[in-house]
Amino acid sequence: MIDFTYQSPTKLVFGKSSFSEIGPLSKKYGSKVLLHYGKESVKKYGVYDKVIDELQKHGISFVELGGVIPNPSVSLVREGIKLCRKEKVDFILALGGGSVIDSAKAIAMGLYYDGDVWDFFTEALAPEKALPIGCVLTIPAAGSESSNAVVVTNYEKKLKRSCRHEVLRPKFAILNPVVTYTLPAYQTAVGAVDMMGHVIERYFTNTRHVELIDRLAEGHMKTTIQQVSLCLKEPKNYDARAQLMLASTIAHNGWLGLGREEDWACHWMEYEVTQKTGIAHGHGLAILYPAWMRYVLEHDIERFALFAQKVFDIPSEGDLYQQAKRGIDALEAFYHSLNLSTRLSQIGLNESDLPEMAKTVTNNNAKTIGNFVSLNYDDVLAIYKLAF
Amino acid sequence: MIDFTYQSPTKLVFGKSSFSEIGPLSKKYGSKVLLHYGKESVKKYGVYDKVIDELQKHGISFVELGGVIPNPSVSLVREGIKLCRKEKVDFILALGGGSVIDSAKAIAMGLYYDGDVWDFFTEALAPEKALPIGCVLTIPAAGSESSNAVVVTNYEKKLKRSCRHEVLRPKFAILNPVVTYTLPAYQTAVGAVDMMGHVIERYFTNTRHVELIDRLAEGHMKTTIQQVSLCLKEPKNYDARAQLMLASTIAHNGWLGLGREEDWACHWMEYEVTQKTGIAHGHGLAILYPAWMRYVLEHDIERFALFAQKVFDIPSEGDLYQQAKRGIDALEAFYHSLNLSTRLSQIGLNESDLPEMAKTVTNNNAKTIGNFVSLNYDDVLAIYKLAF
Repeated sequence: MIDFTYQSPTKLVFGKSSFSEIGPLSKKYGSKVLLHYGKESVKKYGVYDKVIDELQKHGISFVELGGVIPNPSVSLVREGIKLCRKEKVDFILALGGGSVIDSAKAIAMGLYYDGDVWDFFTEALAPEKALPIGCVLTIPAAGSESSNAVVVTNYEKKLKRSCRHEVLRPKFAILNPVVTYTLPAYQTAVGAVDMMGHVIERYFTNTRHVELIDRLAEGHMKTTIQQVSLCLKEPKNYDARAQLMLASTIAHNGWLGLGREEDWACHWMEYEVTQKTGIAHGHGLAILYPAWMRYVLEHDIERFALFAQKVFDIPSEGDLYQQAKRGIDALEAFYHSLNLSTRLSQIGLNESDLPEMAKTVTNNNAKTIGNFVSLNYDDVLAIYKLAF
Repeated sequence: MIDFTYQSPTKLVFGKSSFSEIGPLSKKYGSKVLLHYGKESVKKYGVYDKVIDELQKHGISFVELGGVIPNPSVSLVREGIKLCRKEKVDFILALGGGSVIDSAKAIAMGLYYDGDVWDFFTEALAPEKALPIGCVLTIPAAGSESSNAVVVTNYEKKLKRSCRHEVLRPKFAILNPVVTYTLPAYQTAVGAVDMMGHVIERYFTNTRHVELIDRLAEGHMKTTIQQVSLCLKEPKNYDARAQLMLASTIAHNGWLGLGREEDWACHWMEYEVTQKTGIAHGHGLAILYPAWMRYVLEHDIERFALFAQKVFDIPSEGDLYQQAKRGIDALEAFYHSLNLSTRLSQIGLNESDLPEMAKTVTNNNAKTIGNFVSLNYDDVLAIYKLAF
């Protein structure tokens, strides 16, 4: 186990009654709110109206900025920063999933910076402060509702980039599973892959003797697998939706990474897949994890065998290597059970795209990615090919 | 799953290098510190000296109050409140285990109250604020280092009482597993029983569909059982000590109770055992859990069977009742493996003491305790007898 410092001050307000806290909590942190959201779906299913109601009921003054797209654009972030400055906004309420919350985080940290907010994503620059933000989560997936992470895309430069800063953790997260009843099956599925991905990135580590968090992570992954299947069968099953929403938050708030080195290679590789194809992040991960696992398997067969045993109940039968391989197959079969394809060739990419993608990921082979196994250009290209 | 609100802002600073944060963090919260501790053991093994060094190195002005006893006394708390007022203390640094941290919490909340601090433990009185406190943990057990709970004993009234308030959560916890190398085996053992008890109290619930936290709780209990055995065999095994210290914190910071009703009957019954005998809280719990479990088993055989299966790997073989019973036997055997007796008759109590104890616990049969199964005077007496 390695030394760590951890703090997650986000207040979680969870359940059917959680909307009643939107007004009081927003009022606590701001007097002029930016209500930030994405597409029309928040309006279609009434969530937007309920939030507006809560703000008005508590006499909270607000301005709006909608239009956040999946893989949020730094252009809209810049627009948001201008709007917040003009309107003297002192609190941002993000209504949506990870994209909206990330867009809000980027606005919050850009506000106090004189340069271009994109600098935070390309240079070793840490924001000293950020506007407080709160969120009303509508899509359990990214875990951004209580994480210190933010991911945005620069469409002009064709780059998707992330950073992590403690000042970005939301002050509160309103987690009402009922709002996820109307999520399309695809979004429920890729959301589950995304949250499980946040655990996988932490589970495959070279840090030894992290048994406690290992056991928690295994329990988390097992539950996500079971509950997402239930959500797909019964979209209005409150308890299954609740399990999945809580799993989303826990997957990425840092608990499951305490005291260990984390990996994150697949996230880097996936950013490029999404950037090229526009596919959902979770779907990209479902394609990459099985390929990455098969490529790095020999680095630590025991850990993959443990994953197979604890997450998929695959017995060892005396052959760790076979057990490990069957675990990876089980993971891919799980993705298939969610109706997700697991090949890059099935999402509109050509094999000739892969070298350029591997170049972008490794900055022309000038850097490696990942900690479990450090991957250079050749490795990344090989994994893309395996996943093709 | 039931609705919940959760926030745990305590900063965890974990590991071999964690002591270097004592100075900077103390300075952040106060200009005049009360250093609060217990017996001579903190001085004997050098921890006290290291903490003093860190405070002096950072030019932090402090006064001292030692002498906290296990099951901390409200008398010393009152003394601490007077001292803090006189010395204009604005921050308390607790150096010790749960007793010291609880004593610090009680001082912190009593400081702003004109009446007697004991009122918080006997009346429905909530502190509006409390002095900030930080802690340097030396005994992994109570989980007080990041919990909202406090337990003190009124020796004049022969009452041990607890309360919970969010203002009591420490600002930071310094968690250095190295300081636990010198813990006596008995203290390591009862500490593990205590932390596992905090999970047991949450695991046995009537709330349905709490699968995610159930799996995390099972992983937690399993790890505690394994790691405490390793700590007893190898007291200077850093990784085992680290697992146990982290387990202590996670067991009682609220994670494992999210979205469910908790029980806590055994804690109520145990307070009276400790009060009568002076035995360590964890030892009292080791005596009571098996008896309580056998008494309430029929209320939810399935849950006890699940406990047996997930925590002790006991197969079902088609008979849930037998599986459940074997799980309880396995728990008692685990306590025996820690060299703990599991009978009230073995710790100096007489059978004739039991009715009076049951009366105190149930306030002369005027109240019931526990949520999993609500226990009245007769139930409590029956459980004490089963445990005798």
